[in-house]
Amino acid sequence: MSTGHQAGTADQAGTIERSGGRADGRRDDELRPVSFTRGWLEQAEGSVLVSYGSTRVLVAASVTEGVPRWRKGSGLGWVTSEYAMLPRATNTRSDRESVKGRIGGRTHEISRLIGRSLRAVIDYRALGENTIVLDCDVLQADGGTRTASITGAYVALHDAVEWLRRRNLLAGDPLTGSVAAVSVGVVGGTPLLDLCYTEDSGADTDMNVVMSGTGEFIEVQGTAEGRPFDRATLDRLLDLGAAGCAELTRLQQAALAG
Amino acid sequence: MSTGHQAGTADQAGTIERSGGRADGRRDDELRPVSFTRGWLEQAEGSVLVSYGSTRVLVAASVTEGVPRWRKGSGLGWVTSEYAMLPRATNTRSDRESVKGRIGGRTHEISRLIGRSLRAVIDYRALGENTIVLDCDVLQADGGTRTASITGAYVALHDAVEWLRRRNLLAGDPLTGSVAAVSVGVVGGTPLLDLCYTEDSGADTDMNVVMSGTGEFIEVQGTAEGRPFDRATLDRLLDLGAAGCAELTRLQQAALAG
Amino acid sequence: MSTGHQAGTADQAGTIERSGGRADGRRDDELRPVSFTRGWLEQAEGSVLVSYGSTRVLVAASVTEGVPRWRKGSGLGWVTSEYAMLPRATNTRSDRESVKGRIGGRTHEISRLIGRSLRAVIDYRALGENTIVLDCDVLQADGGTRTASITGAYVALHDAVEWLRRRNLLAGDPLTGSVAAVSVGVVGGTPLLDLCYTEDSGADTDMNVVMSGTGEFIEVQGTAEGRPFDRATLDRLLDLGAAGCAELTRLQQAALAG
Amino acid sequence: MSTGHQAGTADQAGTIERSGGRADGRRDDELRPVSFTRGWLEQAEGSVLVSYGSTRVLVAASVTEGVPRWRKGSGLGWVTSEYAMLPRATNTRSDRESVKGRIGGRTHEISRLIGRSLRAVIDYRALGENTIVLDCDVLQADGGTRTASITGAYVALHDAVEWLRRRNLLAGDPLTGSVAAVSVGVVGGTPLLDLCYTEDSGADTDMNVVMSGTGEFIEVQGTAEGRPFDRATLDRLLDLGAAGCAELTRLQQAALAG
Amino acid sequence: MSTGHQAGTADQAGTIERSGGRADGRRDDELRPVSFTRGWLEQAEGSVLVSYGSTRVLVAASVTEGVPRWRKGSGLGWVTSEYAMLPRATNTRSDRESVKGRIGGRTHEISRLIGRSLRAVIDYRALGENTIVLDCDVLQADGGTRTASITGAYVALHDAVEWLRRRNLLAGDPLTGSVAAVSVGVVGGTPLLDLCYTEDSGADTDMNVVMSGTGEFIEVQGTAEGRPFDRATLDRLLDLGAAGCAELTRLQQAALAG
Amino acid sequence: MSTGHQAGTADQAGTIERSGGRADGRRDDELRPVSFTRGWLEQAEGSVLVSYGSTRVLVAASVTEGVPRWRKGSGLGWVTSEYAMLPRATNTRSDRESVKGRIGGRTHEISRLIGRSLRAVIDYRALGENTIVLDCDVLQADGGTRTASITGAYVALHDAVEWLRRRNLLAGDPLTGSVAAVSVGVVGGTPLLDLCYTEDSGADTDMNVVMSGTGEFIEVQGTAEGRPFDRATLDRLLDLGAAGCAELTRLQQAALAG
Repeated sequence: MSTGHQAGTADQAGTIERSGGRADGRRDDELRPVSFTRGWLEQAEGSVLVSYGSTRVLVAASVTEGVPRWRKGSGLGWVTSEYAMLPRATNTRSDRESVKGRIGGRTHEISRLIGRSLRAVIDYRALGENTIVLDCDVLQADGGTRTASITGAYVALHDAVEWLRRRNLLAGDPLTGSVAAVSVGVVGGTPLLDLCYTEDSGADTDMNVVMSGTGEFIEVQGTAEGRPFDRATLDRLLDLGAAGCAELTRLQQAALAG
Repeated sequence: MSTGHQAGTADQAGTIERSGGRADGRRDDELRPVSFTRGWLEQAEGSVLVSYGSTRVLVAASVTEGVPRWRKGSGLGWVTSEYAMLPRATNTRSDRESVKGRIGGRTHEISRLIGRSLRAVIDYRALGENTIVLDCDVLQADGGTRTASITGAYVALHDAVEWLRRRNLLAGDPLTGSVAAVSVGVVGGTPLLDLCYTEDSGADTDMNVVMSGTGEFIEVQGTAEGRPFDRATLDRLLDLGAAGCAELTRLQQAALAG
Repeated sequence: MSTGHQAGTADQAGTIERSGGRADGRRDDELRPVSFTRGWLEQAEGSVLVSYGSTRVLVAASVTEGVPRWRKGSGLGWVTSEYAMLPRATNTRSDRESVKGRIGGRTHEISRLIGRSLRAVIDYRALGENTIVLDCDVLQADGGTRTASITGAYVALHDAVEWLRRRNLLAGDPLTGSVAAVSVGVVGGTPLLDLCYTEDSGADTDMNVVMSGTGEFIEVQGTAEGRPFDRATLDRLLDLGAAGCAELTRLQQAALAG
Repeated sequence: MSTGHQAGTADQAGTIERSGGRADGRRDDELRPVSFTRGWLEQAEGSVLVSYGSTRVLVAASVTEGVPRWRKGSGLGWVTSEYAMLPRATNTRSDRESVKGRIGGRTHEISRLIGRSLRAVIDYRALGENTIVLDCDVLQADGGTRTASITGAYVALHDAVEWLRRRNLLAGDPLTGSVAAVSVGVVGGTPLLDLCYTEDSGADTDMNVVMSGTGEFIEVQGTAEGRPFDRATLDRLLDLGAAGCAELTRLQQAALAG
Repeated sequence: MSTGHQAGTADQAGTIERSGGRADGRRDDELRPVSFTRGWLEQAEGSVLVSYGSTRVLVAASVTEGVPRWRKGSGLGWVTSEYAMLPRATNTRSDRESVKGRIGGRTHEISRLIGRSLRAVIDYRALGENTIVLDCDVLQADGGTRTASITGAYVALHDAVEWLRRRNLLAGDPLTGSVAAVSVGVVGGTPLLDLCYTEDSGADTDMNVVMSGTGEFIEVQGTAEGRPFDRATLDRLLDLGAAGCAELTRLQQAALAG
Repeated sequence: MSTGHQAGTADQAGTIERSGGRADGRRDDELRPVSFTRGWLEQAEGSVLVSYGSTRVLVAASVTEGVPRWRKGSGLGWVTSEYAMLPRATNTRSDRESVKGRIGGRTHEISRLIGRSLRAVIDYRALGENTIVLDCDVLQADGGTRTASITGAYVALHDAVEWLRRRNLLAGDPLTGSVAAVSVGVVGGTPLLDLCYTEDSGADTDMNVVMSGTGEFIEVQGTAEGRPFDRATLDRLLDLGAAGCAELTRLQQAALAG
């Protein structure tokens, strides 16, 4: 039930050797080691402990019969997500949002992104009036927590759909494709794939790319952290992201075959 | 003090005539009428009532001496933003976030986007230990409220910087450029510039493009609302957005010259 | 649709010339310039931008079918109000109540006052099981924001009732009268009508008077800010307020005839 | 330490005999039995259990050295109040505001009224940089809870001032007068003094009158619950309120002499 | 309706004379004076003002027809409790939980304890689909507020059950027994019964014992405040607590017979 | 760094064979398999993934220099804890407390219990002005989450203290002993050690026992869920708990030696 996969090269041609290079010795277009431990939770309808290097996210897919009030009687299902970080996932402890009594903007934003990304591959009619909630809890954070969440959530979602299928609770095949996500960015002038925390915090430009298994875009979010970037940089980042997502798609398939 | 500008054509070459066309008769690459009323508030250091068609946002720039605690003694300034919508800005009334006791995820996300976008053209050292808060309150919403907010906030920010300059409170020129933003999207298979509400709610793909006055990207956020989109579509949307931002930059300059 | 009215003299006989007088040259019993811009919002069932001098309030009347749970099945309608101020309506920026996560006591108190004042001229049975919410958002504050809100809210309420009438959704005429409100106070020993911010903040006594179009009292709230006041002062303030409300009633009628 | 006083007649001349009369047999201008039990709490610097008929309010005056941040270094003191109701003070149980997580508008409004009323008789300079908080907790409610709170709070405030005086912590005499309050209203066309709950809930007009011991007005709040009221009615209510406050002032003095 | 009882000796044999003894002269195994004033509130279905020495708690039992949503249609009743302290119940004023906007952990914990303790003697089926809420508001605190609340709440609960019985609203006898509670602790090496505040705050070990009228345990909560305690100490504390609860049971019976 | 321990028998003499027995085949006085994985987090000063059967808790110990405001300058350290459960730790998903905006009573109560339990073995002076926060996040819940949290928290606390020691940041040895905890209860009339969820939810009596490594009590919390229990049952439960804690102490020592 538990499978670990060493990520291969995302974009094997065209890598340029830089003096210095990355702290962990990766090539610019190389993912960190990626692993998926399916069924980490005994009671959830789908679950996976996903890691991108030191980033570890526990994803639980919970199936409930029925849909939110505004969707009742439509014959359509619903998929949503909540993202959170344990207080000591990071290098210094953060206060709990439950203690502060309100969810921060970043948390909300990422929860919404994950939900949208997965809904892009859902056929609501085939799902029937069932709801799947994807809880993505970051146990340890080292950059890329939102992209690891999305990539892992697809695996947990897949298993929850299988759980429904085995019980004959589906009206068809609700998954119209797969989803994977990766971050890219420009660090010291060099475009890099799958930034770890120290790379991310020093990036001029930071972009998250969410793609379908067939290589189309589901979400692109690029931000100039330092200074504005030109079209050529944007194009190079999109290339890196597309290659990274393709590799992640292969790793998801291997994990689901495991 | 008040100037109204009729937007010209964003991308005058290469427009394809579609049968049907847009509800308001615009070409696919045409902005809605844009206007800026500077100094709408008598007491704010900078203010503008900006409209993109029926979308109207009141932007106030408030200058305060000093910076947040975590930045004290650094010699650096700070710029931030808060976005909100009046309850009856939309077609049906929404509950106030103050009454609900918490700010929604969408509000947080947009406030953060506006702040990031403007900070991309700020030289903190030249600003000195001053803070400028940009309040963007949507009085009437018809699509594009976040992009109108950004475009208007640049104008109010400019006036607040002038206010500081006239009082000799600056250590240099804190504005390293200008910022404008516009939405683009694919509606019924056709890429369109500056979506109004009905276009936006029916879009397959929706993208917000924030650019500097020199034509570089500050933020790109594209979402597949319906189905994933390919690289060619992404490229076409970026072209439309870039042309729209260039036109908005010209309109900002005209308003600031007024 | 938009009409501007210059307020005349509220109480033309009996005005005493003081040396010094008011900062804006008004007589003691003179209103500031008052204007009503009806239909400022395109989608609200009723709306008005009302100003008392530099005080500007945007009032939206929203009609919804049905009434709150506790009133269902009674055959009676409901009217309520919410008041709020934009963060930069005032001379220095205030924190948003939505960000603070709670509504302040002053905001609650004024919302309740506006709602009560308008309900005094409503025949709930004629309104039928419809609810009208009056949102009063202060865009710029220079004293008298609650009284301008009430006076403007009557105009927006009137237009919302007309909207219902045109759709044959009423069981009769729900408006049993009109409502107007004004502040009065004692400044430097002199009773004054319609205090602006600087007058209000220096007043010994401050009173808000809400009256029907037929000259009866709906609400009287007088407070000794500095020292207690005697019955003669109270009587003089009530005279001033009554004359001011009568003038405001005339201005409302002119605006509604416009 | 505990003294009970039977209220005499507030306004002995000019009472009109109505057929029917009040449920408890009072004349229209008669207070309910009023009592003050001073020192009900052993640890508070001042405290009183005040009752107006079945309405019982426990008032605690807490003295702390120092003033709120915005007043530090001014040499001036501060007086404030908080009002609340136990969940079963009323005929049917209400939810606790602490459980709801927010204070209602009515609670805020009354807290503010009590604080303002007492500050009207405080000389801040004589108080020195001390703060007195008056907690008014309604143990049983039968109408007039805000007016009983004010009348009782004066007694507790007086005792807290004495506590400070005995410790030589005052710069002079901080009490410039006394304060008492009573409700008046029009029920079934008849103006009445000191409404109990059933009278209050059936009143056309409801007014709270707060007066100094020397017979001047500190606060007047009149509301047309049913229909607008004319000037003659307002005058009659003010007369009744003034006579009631004079009687309450006598009862306060007797209690403080006890 | 109001009865005051002087507590006798809880455990008359085996008391050891210490030099010094307790500040109020009590023997180690002696309760403070205990009193119950039933019917302190006129409108509640059951109420009691209970005191253990200077600790005074007002308990109101509110009966409502029906049960919480999760219990509807079960034929079973429900009993719950809320505990709170007035801000000046203690020696120095505490902020109100309603003002802070959240209930503290201690408050929650005690509310849950009281509810559990009373539910231990309730036959839900005999109660029928009725809910009884026990509000325990501490008016003055001098140690033992939670145990006084439980002991008083049983009395108020008893009276609320009688209220239901007189109206023939019960399906049987919902009270299967009585409940009383007392604190015990080790102070300066000596086990003591019914700690007052100064004893409690200096205790090495603090234990609350809740027992049925027949001498069985309902809840035992012992905490080493200073250092861990051995089994012999635990046994001695349980003995003291059992004797104290037996005495309190006798006092409850006397009050209910009054 | 990671060690797994199979729990032996807690109380090898005196076990009575019941017909039926426990669902997982354990003897009445037998712990579930217990394991400790130290250093599960790379960045926390101490961390452990602790499991009692299927119950899994991730404990992180975070060291920060300095103490809360109320303790500053005392020379004393501080230890506190926060407990929480992931939404899908349980069989059906629960709402997040961060989303609900408030922490439930149960969460507060357990956080306080864990903190108190660990503080019982801390010498604040030896700790110096350092704070250690123990975050106990339940990843999977199958009964005994609070006791597993305490037992695991001791291990993480131990490692955090070692971290401080290696950096010479201690004024002595802050650990005066070790702490372990286990639940006991009466199920179907039989006293059992270390209840799993199904046993716990069917228990008549439920008790949590926290003990020092030397066999003294730190906390005893026993509750009659069904009916009151007698002294003999209480004594038997204390015996079982003491034996269980002794076994857990041995397992902690083995893990810390690993």
